Amino acid sequence: MSKKFVYSFSEGNSTMRELLGGKGANLAEMTSMGLPVPQGFTISTEACTKYYEDGKKISEEIITEIEEHLKKLESLSGKKFGDPKNPLLVSVRSGARASMPGMMDTILNLGLNDQVVQGFAEKTQNDRFAYDSYRRFIQMFSDVVMELNKKNFEVIIDEMKKEKGVELDTELDANDLKEMVSRFKAYYKQEKGEDFPSEPKSQLIEAVKAVFRSWDNPRAIYYRRMNDIPSSWGTAVNVQMMVFGNMGNTSGTGVAFTRNAATGENKLFGEFLMNAQGEDVVAGIRTPKSIDQLKEVMPNVYDQFVKICNTLEDHYRDMQDMEFTIEEGKLYMLQTRNGKRTPAAALKIACDLVEEGKIDKEKAVSMIEPRSLDALLHPQFDASKLKAATPIASGLAASPGAATGKAVFYAADAVRASENGEKVILIRLETSPEDIEGMDSAQGILTVRGGMTSHAAVVARGMGKCCVSGCGEIEINEEEKWFKVSGKTYKEGDYISIDGTTGNVYGEAIPTVEAEISGYFEKIMTWADELRRLKIRTNADTPRDAKQAVAFGAEGVGLCRTEHMFFEADRIKAMREMILSKTEDQRKKALNKLLPMQQKDFEEIYEALGGKPVTVRFLDPPLHEFVPTEEAEQSELAKELNITLEEVKATVASLHEFNPMMGHRGCRLAVTYPEIAVMQTTAVINAAINIIKKHSDWNLVPEIMIPLVGDIAELQYVKSIVVKTADQLIKDAGVSLKYKVGTMIEIPRAALTADEIAKDAEFFSFGTNDLTQMTFGFSRDDAGKFLESYYEKKIYEQDPFARLDQNGVGKLVEMASKLGRKTRPDLHLGICGEHGGDPSSIEFCDKVGLDYVSCSPFRVPIARLAAAQAAIKHK
Amino acid sequence: MSKKFVYSFSEGNSTMRELLGGKGANLAEMTSMGLPVPQGFTISTEACTKYYEDGKKISEEIITEIEEHLKKLESLSGKKFGDPKNPLLVSVRSGARASMPGMMDTILNLGLNDQVVQGFAEKTQNDRFAYDSYRRFIQMFSDVVMELNKKNFEVIIDEMKKEKGVELDTELDANDLKEMVSRFKAYYKQEKGEDFPSEPKSQLIEAVKAVFRSWDNPRAIYYRRMNDIPSSWGTAVNVQMMVFGNMGNTSGTGVAFTRNAATGENKLFGEFLMNAQGEDVVAGIRTPKSIDQLKEVMPNVYDQFVKICNTLEDHYRDMQDMEFTIEEGKLYMLQTRNGKRTPAAALKIACDLVEEGKIDKEKAVSMIEPRSLDALLHPQFDASKLKAATPIASGLAASPGAATGKAVFYAADAVRASENGEKVILIRLETSPEDIEGMDSAQGILTVRGGMTSHAAVVARGMGKCCVSGCGEIEINEEEKWFKVSGKTYKEGDYISIDGTTGNVYGEAIPTVEAEISGYFEKIMTWADELRRLKIRTNADTPRDAKQAVAFGAEGVGLCRTEHMFFEADRIKAMREMILSKTEDQRKKALNKLLPMQQKDFEEIYEALGGKPVTVRFLDPPLHEFVPTEEAEQSELAKELNITLEEVKATVASLHEFNPMMGHRGCRLAVTYPEIAVMQTTAVINAAINIIKKHSDWNLVPEIMIPLVGDIAELQYVKSIVVKTADQLIKDAGVSLKYKVGTMIEIPRAALTADEIAKDAEFFSFGTNDLTQMTFGFSRDDAGKFLESYYEKKIYEQDPFARLDQNGVGKLVEMASKLGRKTRPDLHLGICGEHGGDPSSIEFCDKVGLDYVSCSPFRVPIARLAAAQAAIKHK
Repeated sequence: MSKKFVYSFSEGNSTMRELLGGKGANLAEMTSMGLPVPQGFTISTEACTKYYEDGKKISEEIITEIEEHLKKLESLSGKKFGDPKNPLLVSVRSGARASMPGMMDTILNLGLNDQVVQGFAEKTQNDRFAYDSYRRFIQMFSDVVMELNKKNFEVIIDEMKKEKGVELDTELDANDLKEMVSRFKAYYKQEKGEDFPSEPKSQLIEAVKAVFRSWDNPRAIYYRRMNDIPSSWGTAVNVQMMVFGNMGNTSGTGVAFTRNAATGENKLFGEFLMNAQGEDVVAGIRTPKSIDQLKEVMPNVYDQFVKICNTLEDHYRDMQDMEFTIEEGKLYMLQTRNGKRTPAAALKIACDLVEEGKIDKEKAVSMIEPRSLDALLHPQFDASKLKAATPIASGLAASPGAATGKAVFYAADAVRASENGEKVILIRLETSPEDIEGMDSAQGILTVRGGMTSHAAVVARGMGKCCVSGCGEIEINEEEKWFKVSGKTYKEGDYISIDGTTGNVYGEAIPTVEAEISGYFEKIMTWADELRRLKIRTNADTPRDAKQAVAFGAEGVGLCRTEHMFFEADRIKAMREMILSKTEDQRKKALNKLLPMQQKDFEEIYEALGGKPVTVRFLDPPLHEFVPTEEAEQSELAKELNITLEEVKATVASLHEFNPMMGHRGCRLAVTYPEIAVMQTTAVINAAINIIKKHSDWNLVPEIMIPLVGDIAELQYVKSIVVKTADQLIKDAGVSLKYKVGTMIEIPRAALTADEIAKDAEFFSFGTNDLTQMTFGFSRDDAGKFLESYYEKKIYEQDPFARLDQNGVGKLVEMASKLGRKTRPDLHLGICGEHGGDPSSIEFCDKVGLDYVSCSPFRVPIARLAAAQAAIKHK
Repeated sequence: MSKKFVYSFSEGNSTMRELLGGKGANLAEMTSMGLPVPQGFTISTEACTKYYEDGKKISEEIITEIEEHLKKLESLSGKKFGDPKNPLLVSVRSGARASMPGMMDTILNLGLNDQVVQGFAEKTQNDRFAYDSYRRFIQMFSDVVMELNKKNFEVIIDEMKKEKGVELDTELDANDLKEMVSRFKAYYKQEKGEDFPSEPKSQLIEAVKAVFRSWDNPRAIYYRRMNDIPSSWGTAVNVQMMVFGNMGNTSGTGVAFTRNAATGENKLFGEFLMNAQGEDVVAGIRTPKSIDQLKEVMPNVYDQFVKICNTLEDHYRDMQDMEFTIEEGKLYMLQTRNGKRTPAAALKIACDLVEEGKIDKEKAVSMIEPRSLDALLHPQFDASKLKAATPIASGLAASPGAATGKAVFYAADAVRASENGEKVILIRLETSPEDIEGMDSAQGILTVRGGMTSHAAVVARGMGKCCVSGCGEIEINEEEKWFKVSGKTYKEGDYISIDGTTGNVYGEAIPTVEAEISGYFEKIMTWADELRRLKIRTNADTPRDAKQAVAFGAEGVGLCRTEHMFFEADRIKAMREMILSKTEDQRKKALNKLLPMQQKDFEEIYEALGGKPVTVRFLDPPLHEFVPTEEAEQSELAKELNITLEEVKATVASLHEFNPMMGHRGCRLAVTYPEIAVMQTTAVINAAINIIKKHSDWNLVPEIMIPLVGDIAELQYVKSIVVKTADQLIKDAGVSLKYKVGTMIEIPRAALTADEIAKDAEFFSFGTNDLTQMTFGFSRDDAGKFLESYYEKKIYEQDPFARLDQNGVGKLVEMASKLGRKTRPDLHLGICGEHGGDPSSIEFCDKVGLDYVSCSPFRVPIARLAAAQAAIKHK
């Protein structure tokens, strides 16, 4: 038997979402619940997939099935498709598994043509209504099926209104609308070179094809990419008998939510319009009424509707978003679905549903979209004020949140302004380590150059500070303190606002609001913590970040990048002195200056963690990141170190690398300069000794992580230095202190030889940022040049830096986990790349058996929730 | 029972090489053959490994075993270690599995002290001999065991000779030597703060430890790295009863080869000295006599020796290198081993041995070191002239061979000089595409910057032209046409010589000789071809290279890098025009200029291959490699293209990448600019159509290779363009032409998802250069900065770019091969990285079942031989 591609509403139910799409499955479910649903049928997602497989053609077998279901619908409705005497009209709507904006939405009144419209007019006794329906159909069909822009039809309408001397569409009478239909059709023929399709069946097939096509339009592709929806899913198509809300004063249409989508309040919420079709509600010509008022207008219908709402919410155990139509006093349900809601509402609704006994905690935790919590953690623009603002430019959404302030162009200016209590946005061509203090003082950072891992982006994310990077549209002159975009110049002191969640830049002040974190948030987090298996750590480089993360629920530091500690003004000097040293002794002297500062940082981080584990990664970036590139600064440095400018220049030149990403960095630095590892070990261990002396009840076990290991021998060499140094310090201090040495798995070869490496590593932390770069063979900073083409041509659907590539990179992670645990069954496994804060990647980490994920402080709550959802899923 | 660490010579044989080392195994074998060998014992390589495992200590159990074997040796010899009345003296020699210069060689006369020497003198009735032996022992022992430089002892000898007013050591009498001994010992005490060790047993143990230590000295490590010897092998130690060639005129010592090591001639070849110890032969004070003359001096001994030589060669079935001593008329064999020989001699000896029926072809093919053939393929310095020359600098041995000529600093000067019949060396800071013609005109290329994959290195290797790259010691001023090194300045026109095999640079002319390729070479190659399974292809980008490779036996082109075709003067213009195009149309126009040139290249390459397969790789490098970086050139380009300098600069700037290795290159170019793939497909297919029209009997199947694929979707996208273009061209031409589309596996992710990729790839070619870079996470151009530290610290023993890393990169190759063949059992597999010319990597390729290896033209004979050896090994 051949495959079935079309299902009557009465054949399906809500579990058939994959096949029927969300809308189709819910229409079927409502049908089976005995609710008043205009009947129809759903063309399955598999038909869509087949359409693409067949080279964008609908096969004969599918067409036959559609025709069969049309016949059934005719007999069910007692009407006939294309029959002027008693015409069946249908709506055609797309409906994917997940609700997806950007796809073809709706065609109403399909089945009309010049003959049918006459019969329809007679039957409804309403010429105007019939021709209005017809002209709307022509307009919609031409627009969404035939790709004739809707606006061109609006022009015709405007012309006619002018000719008739009227202002509103509603002032046009039936004859005007007949004339309008013929003008629409003439315009159609002129543009398309053929008559408007009058055969209802071919209208239907064309509409179905248009839905299938719309699955692959650029907006839909973009939305899928943003929301992790695979293109292989396809969309279903729903063909439903028309009911009319515009048949007079006992007809109407509306939408409603069973609870308030903005606040979560448990109160029916919605709007309706009498004598109207769906698009009128959207068009905003008339102001819809609140759903409460329906009680007065049609009390019976209202009562019936409220009952249905309660039934649906109880049935779906979630807040419902419904569309309904009243045709001549009879209520029809056109759609129901779990309603979209604000993050705050989501939390309240989930908690309330548990309290009402409708769902359990697992379900409550599963209902919250983890990423939506982000909005609760950062300041946002006041939505009402944002509406009036237009972006002047757009860059990369490098670090979320919103910020507004006066433009400054130098870090020092930001510091000064901040000291004077002024709020500023720091705008730079690109930031460098010297800018750290200024970045900290600013409300937000805007850079012209640099990608998602540029200095500005990484540091800002670490700070939880809003940042827009790589805003190349801007022309900047730092020296003269101005930037120019679209012909307008903005000077120091001018107000600027930036949105790190969208990448938008505004040339004006837009007030921001701190998002409130209600008690529901904490409740959901507690439940999530009870349910999850994965521990959540944080990537924190400073005591402040560590404190923030602990406040957000972090259970340890999974990645403390020590290099960030070296960028502050007094430290970078010692760092540069170290780099410019000619002998090991000079280098040691410079390192000795860094030692007390680094040790103090560690002590403060240990304090902030209160005894929870802290993984310290040893120096990782290539040394050229620490030296100045501009001659003035180089001169200054030469003076400070009492060497010649030429020597400074020579060192800087010698640090140049063709591919710094794959250069002299990570453990390679410790191999060539073991004294750096000695200093860092001393700082880690001495800090721990001081802390355990102070807090004898803490079981502090510092974890030292050697980065960029590709071969067991590298780890062994550096580890031997660490162990020798640490053991001596512990012995000298006469204390009992355990510590661990492990490695970051971020080089493919480390994953491939993980069984070897586990011999000497007590833990692995997957550095999936670099692992993704090496496994894909592309540099994140450069990939922007071609990734757009890749998305456009559907070669990649996802940004592998945002979502762990499970087929490739994930294969290495899984392989390394298995190999590592074969050698060392108690090997502790974690992830510290940015994927550690991405829900779908966290699910993968749970599946392959990692012990923890580590993410930036502001991602900790998201990770806690995602980890709980993963645990529920894998139970 | 505990492990056995020490073996008497009578306990071993030649198959125990791994345990006893080469020297020990052969001494045991000679013993078992009944040849006259002074007896002794071998401390195994496992003892050496244990020494290192135990933290550089000899365990008690090994010391006990040594003492037991010493007792056996005493009873066998009837002498007693440390007994003044009848002393047993021994030699101590290192002996690894493979002969290894750089390790401790020999200590003679061990067992002497102040008491023993007196008894020894009485017993031998030769005071002078006894004390001469003693002072030699002190000198050797202090030098190699106690690390007191031998030279300091020579100073004492010189002082004594001055005091005595004599010129030669031999003029010192017994009393002088006694005095010398006491001065040596005094000097020893002064330096070491303790007496010279007088206890023979502790002398022995110290000597054994010194041998073990020498396994890990820097020269030994370097040699191992160069010769693929793992450090885990360890060395054995041979302790052998002394026999004395210096006991008078019926005593003597010598070395001999069963055949001529330089020419391979089948004639005993060697030297000896009467009344001498081994070191005298080396010292060169007396001129040794030819082995023939022994016939006259001691006819019986000579006959016995010749008989032994024949026995040994028959036994080992290879030319032997032997040491012998005659003690008072009695012949002793001290060593035999397969003799080192020149590459030419190796070929002749192997062929002769087959002809003599001593070995079969398999054995003959296995006897030749594949890499040694390289010397037969490139010009070399005249060895007699080279001796007198001292290098002025040293760089990377980037492309083998030797070259001499006048220094020039610009490619144009090289071309001009060459047209005038002058021979030049082109010296550049670094070369760029514009230098190609000049490089071709020069005898050799010397660059100050750049690694083993720099432009200069890659292009020179492709041309088979000598190149030394990255010679950073040199200060160069190209504009003024001079370079400076060690304070001396060399100007244009000064003679320079460079050795691309060693990296040495000479400040003078050194004559070169073309190496002769005798008929034996071809014979061995023919046998190798009969035996091997792997096909050998070549990496050739030009018709000339292709011809050269075919002459060397290549069976196809495995990698034709099309970008190299774009660097010639007229082509690079069109290329730049393409890059600077603003629209697709402009780009197509520029590409149309390139099309006929590229098509012609392909036609010529197909012609050169005579119908053998040719794999064409599509454009791979990032586009910035094609644009000029200097303003003058940029200006010129702007003028040519009639655009502004700013536009040129902007494009060049936009092409800048942080990590170009991982940037916009490979198939990523074809994704963003599909028109490039269209042009290249057209060139490949049209060229093939023209060729098959001309040679209807050729079964030409062009292979199109898409580079840098990491995901099946990339391959599918580019392949669809190729297939569409190619099929249309073939249809239009009305011919029947097959072609294949495949991919390079050079991105880890491609290897990990090879089962997916094989769905669309008809062949895989492993690009192990990039695959190694990505798998290790280091850039070959930058790795020089830390790799020396890695070798020094024994983190790496091998350069993974020279020898395929089987644990990591090899794992990916094997995984991809298996996954790929699971999807497509007839998937054609090859390798085209530089490893394709490395014998140990070729062995790996044979093992994992690749179909072919592809290497540079000058490596083809090496690969043919290595492939045969691999096949023999895996049979």
